[in-house]
Amino acid sequence: MEDPKMLFNATNRDTGNSMYDLIRKLYPICRSITGNGVRNTLSILKEIIPIDVVEVPSGTPVLDWEVPDEWNINAAWIKNPEGEKILDFNNLNLHVLNYSTPVDKEVDLDELKRHLYTSPEHENWVPYRTSYYTRQWGFCMSHKQYRGLKEGKYRVKIDSELTKGSLSYGELLIPGKSENEILFVSHICHPSLCNDNLSGIAVATELANYVTTIERNYSYRFLFIPATIGAITWLSRNESHLHKIKHGVVLSLLGDKSPFQFKKSRKEQTEVNKIMSYLLENEYHGKIVEFSPYGYDERQFCSPGFNLPVGRLSRNSFGEFPEYHTSADNLDFVTPEGLQESFELLAKYISIVEGNKTWINQSPKGEPQLGKYGIYKTTGGESVQKDYQMALLWLLNLSDGENSIIDIAERSGVRIEVLLQACQDLIKVGLLKEA
Amino acid sequence: MEDPKMLFNATNRDTGNSMYDLIRKLYPICRSITGNGVRNTLSILKEIIPIDVVEVPSGTPVLDWEVPDEWNINAAWIKNPEGEKILDFNNLNLHVLNYSTPVDKEVDLDELKRHLYTSPEHENWVPYRTSYYTRQWGFCMSHKQYRGLKEGKYRVKIDSELTKGSLSYGELLIPGKSENEILFVSHICHPSLCNDNLSGIAVATELANYVTTIERNYSYRFLFIPATIGAITWLSRNESHLHKIKHGVVLSLLGDKSPFQFKKSRKEQTEVNKIMSYLLENEYHGKIVEFSPYGYDERQFCSPGFNLPVGRLSRNSFGEFPEYHTSADNLDFVTPEGLQESFELLAKYISIVEGNKTWINQSPKGEPQLGKYGIYKTTGGESVQKDYQMALLWLLNLSDGENSIIDIAERSGVRIEVLLQACQDLIKVGLLKEA
Amino acid sequence: MEDPKMLFNATNRDTGNSMYDLIRKLYPICRSITGNGVRNTLSILKEIIPIDVVEVPSGTPVLDWEVPDEWNINAAWIKNPEGEKILDFNNLNLHVLNYSTPVDKEVDLDELKRHLYTSPEHENWVPYRTSYYTRQWGFCMSHKQYRGLKEGKYRVKIDSELTKGSLSYGELLIPGKSENEILFVSHICHPSLCNDNLSGIAVATELANYVTTIERNYSYRFLFIPATIGAITWLSRNESHLHKIKHGVVLSLLGDKSPFQFKKSRKEQTEVNKIMSYLLENEYHGKIVEFSPYGYDERQFCSPGFNLPVGRLSRNSFGEFPEYHTSADNLDFVTPEGLQESFELLAKYISIVEGNKTWINQSPKGEPQLGKYGIYKTTGGESVQKDYQMALLWLLNLSDGENSIIDIAERSGVRIEVLLQACQDLIKVGLLKEA
Repeated sequence: MEDPKMLFNATNRDTGNSMYDLIRKLYPICRSITGNGVRNTLSILKEIIPIDVVEVPSGTPVLDWEVPDEWNINAAWIKNPEGEKILDFNNLNLHVLNYSTPVDKEVDLDELKRHLYTSPEHENWVPYRTSYYTRQWGFCMSHKQYRGLKEGKYRVKIDSELTKGSLSYGELLIPGKSENEILFVSHICHPSLCNDNLSGIAVATELANYVTTIERNYSYRFLFIPATIGAITWLSRNESHLHKIKHGVVLSLLGDKSPFQFKKSRKEQTEVNKIMSYLLENEYHGKIVEFSPYGYDERQFCSPGFNLPVGRLSRNSFGEFPEYHTSADNLDFVTPEGLQESFELLAKYISIVEGNKTWINQSPKGEPQLGKYGIYKTTGGESVQKDYQMALLWLLNLSDGENSIIDIAERSGVRIEVLLQACQDLIKVGLLKEA
Repeated sequence: MEDPKMLFNATNRDTGNSMYDLIRKLYPICRSITGNGVRNTLSILKEIIPIDVVEVPSGTPVLDWEVPDEWNINAAWIKNPEGEKILDFNNLNLHVLNYSTPVDKEVDLDELKRHLYTSPEHENWVPYRTSYYTRQWGFCMSHKQYRGLKEGKYRVKIDSELTKGSLSYGELLIPGKSENEILFVSHICHPSLCNDNLSGIAVATELANYVTTIERNYSYRFLFIPATIGAITWLSRNESHLHKIKHGVVLSLLGDKSPFQFKKSRKEQTEVNKIMSYLLENEYHGKIVEFSPYGYDERQFCSPGFNLPVGRLSRNSFGEFPEYHTSADNLDFVTPEGLQESFELLAKYISIVEGNKTWINQSPKGEPQLGKYGIYKTTGGESVQKDYQMALLWLLNLSDGENSIIDIAERSGVRIEVLLQACQDLIKVGLLKEA
Repeated sequence: MEDPKMLFNATNRDTGNSMYDLIRKLYPICRSITGNGVRNTLSILKEIIPIDVVEVPSGTPVLDWEVPDEWNINAAWIKNPEGEKILDFNNLNLHVLNYSTPVDKEVDLDELKRHLYTSPEHENWVPYRTSYYTRQWGFCMSHKQYRGLKEGKYRVKIDSELTKGSLSYGELLIPGKSENEILFVSHICHPSLCNDNLSGIAVATELANYVTTIERNYSYRFLFIPATIGAITWLSRNESHLHKIKHGVVLSLLGDKSPFQFKKSRKEQTEVNKIMSYLLENEYHGKIVEFSPYGYDERQFCSPGFNLPVGRLSRNSFGEFPEYHTSADNLDFVTPEGLQESFELLAKYISIVEGNKTWINQSPKGEPQLGKYGIYKTTGGESVQKDYQMALLWLLNLSDGENSIIDIAERSGVRIEVLLQACQDLIKVGLLKEA
């Protein structure tokens, strides 16, 4: 008997840099809930993983909503009374209110200010603001610049279009032995924001790549969708399919180095909640957060009419870090190391999902005489193999059809890697069979 | 959308002084478990609320008990060897052992002392003592006076009667749409004691008044009964009726300013336990106490053969304050402010009871597009309406038929006033219907 | 009504010294999982309690195991290069590896050391080591002696036999009114070790003696078996009988004075867990330990194919005290006082088991008028009888068929002695009947 092998070979891959490079490539693109920014993003992903790109026409009814007009933008700027461009969309796409209507006129400072958004708490940062469903025009600028604006006539120009078009999203199914699916969802509607949005896209892309390399009991579905309306649209088009979702995780805010948190699915007793709780509590010093109907797309998947086993994995919490939804959520805010650790956690999660079966002890009366199967020390004392032997004993004792591996890990305190290894050994000698 | 209205308009009434005035009026009357003191008390209440007065003859079997003889008293005093009255029932009705047999004789100090009750820990206070079921005569005096008694012949006189008569209690039913009832119980058997007994009577009376002014889904029953034997008697006469009791609260010790405590009904999972726990934990810094078979009339309502959802609301706990059952529980010990706050809590409780329904989200798949219903902000940022919007989201998410409003309040942490307002708004636009 | 009598009269017996004397008598014998040491031990027990001695032949299949060859030993020693005996089994039977094969040869120091076991952390103590299922020869010595060994030729001699024979165990059934049994298990396979093994044997013996003196609702079975293989053997031979086991307690490590701990049975909701938890938490400041599949024979009784309600009572925990499995677990390590307290706890446990019935209040509507039954004070105030009266009220309130006496003790906080006394009084007056 060797020391238990490290089952989580994914953790040996150095994928942090390739994820970071993808983020750098996607960063300049002006994404929104529809439009060419999304399409360009999906094209770049398609170079890495074979996603399908789905287009759903404006006006299509989707659940209680309808697909909105498509928004595209070419240019946007403000010129001061002296005719100097003091703000330019080309420098930073956050400068325009996302989904802004077009405008091209001269306004005095008072009128201009009614269309300006700033973040007074952080006066050097440009906030990210949207107005998808109320048509208006607007700009976002740093509060410092705002305070310096002088009286006078300003020229404002937003060269945008709101027209019938379509909503675009990307989807990839990687089939496994079972039709039951593990779902990963990331949103693709934010413009130049790195942690919020691009980190999720990058980790999901790398995870899809990884999943193709493993032996899969389950199928894996990856969705790259605009937030809210994208989830609504996908759910609307896939209702007959939803019973196959065994687990789901919404991925967001995974690029910094703050502690992980997992927001549980609304349905309390789900395997995704159990496994993520195990990992965060035992291996990552992370935090488990109760479900609430506020946040990312877990809101839609966990609405009462669906109530799917979908939670959310993040590092910094939604809205709880100062850089959130500002120009400071940029390429300096995320790191290859932060991305890599997020990827590793999710690869571990997948290993556990794949291995988390319920086994039946084939010699349940008394302990089997382990010595005769060659998987137990015969002389005493040494603690090197202590964990492994405890794993054997716990697996045999709790494999009564009531407990899966994750249940046994929780109850025993034995590390799940060791349990999975011991489990394979007990299967080999015929002492465990699948329930 | 306005800021959520204050639903609990009861809290604007200044009823503290009228409750205090009622206590002042009732204070001098010598009540007991039967007799004219109780009848006079009920007559005074009848001037305020239209109670029925019920008379049950002595000797009537009631559950394991029987209605005792009626006790009435005209006078009681002790004269010292010099012939001076040193104690007079007319000055303080606590001076006589409640339910004392008549006596009229000369006794020496030794015999007298065998019939005297004092409270040595508080030597200026006269204790309250009773002997309902063992016939004996006795007086209560301050320990200070007791210590000063000199040898000699004392004249003792108690002009009381124990005769066939009846037990009296008051009852008021205020009907609502439903036959299901909310029950409030206060005891009326204590003589000149303010917090123990009169505070409960006063709050119940004012609450009955208030209930007539609100739109009522439920019926409300108020009982003014002598403790123990009165509850036994009422239960005995109303067995066929008890299934209609949806909640009950025994009211006592509500006139001082100490923190509230709610003693839960014996049956654990009751709405009365849930709502009172919510209010005390979230709004009143009160204490929740587990059921025990010791206390006031919740003992009878929660006996195993009935096991009704009846708890008890008090401030100072039964037997845990020094003034309890002594002459110090007087008009100085209770205040209009203490009474008013108790009344307000109970009015809130009634608002929650009336509003605590279970609703069904009519658009349960995904979140409804709230913007189109006109009950959701369209542009972001401000936190003024944050609570209200969270209320909308929680109500929609948890209105799956499993959760009442109080369940949603507990889980969400959103204040129940805001939830009740948001609930009304969602009903108006058709997004919630009653389960 | 007297003050509640002390029901646990066992606690007045001074049995500590007789248990200690038994330990002193058994200490020199070289026990193992089979052989004459076990037989001699059982003979000595048979002088005190009428056990049956069962012999099961080597080679008998028992569950997943088989009964091993029998081991007996006459002598064992090591002579140094000068021909001096430096270690002798006759001085301390721990010196030989238990189940050692015979050997008689000259070896150099290197080879000798490959057959020596020591305990470096405690260099004056001789460790206890076994090798039941891997045939090898060996000696155990103090690490100090080991360090002093010089180069040269050593003579080693172990005069042992491993032959077809039998495994011996002792069993005693003391019948009660019911066929349902309370099982006490102690292991008898350790040689000169006092706390581990002899303390359990002594307490079980005295307990068997005690049980014959009480009125018994239940039957009591005492097993004196070699660990693991003995439990496996007994279970294998008694499968059809196991449904009668109502509770079981494995007894070990009961002779020192450290706090008690009870390791719960694997099945969570068992009466043995409830009663032991009650006793340890309320009366013994002991510790409750969750089940794990590591320890003494509870491992076998709680294997998933049996899953019996068998826990373990110990003082010092298995493997957690330095003297464990060394020559320091000797006659100085256990005391009559420690043994006596263990015995008393178990006698209390038996009293509670015998008294722990579920009763039904025969007057469940309202409180009965206790005064008329003569079991309730009629005048107030004194706290002497407070506990007793609370016991009456709790028993009446919770005797609805759902709660046994131990449940009522847990919920009420009233001492179980008082509850058992009050229960008897309520039965006498007809207010409680058995469910």
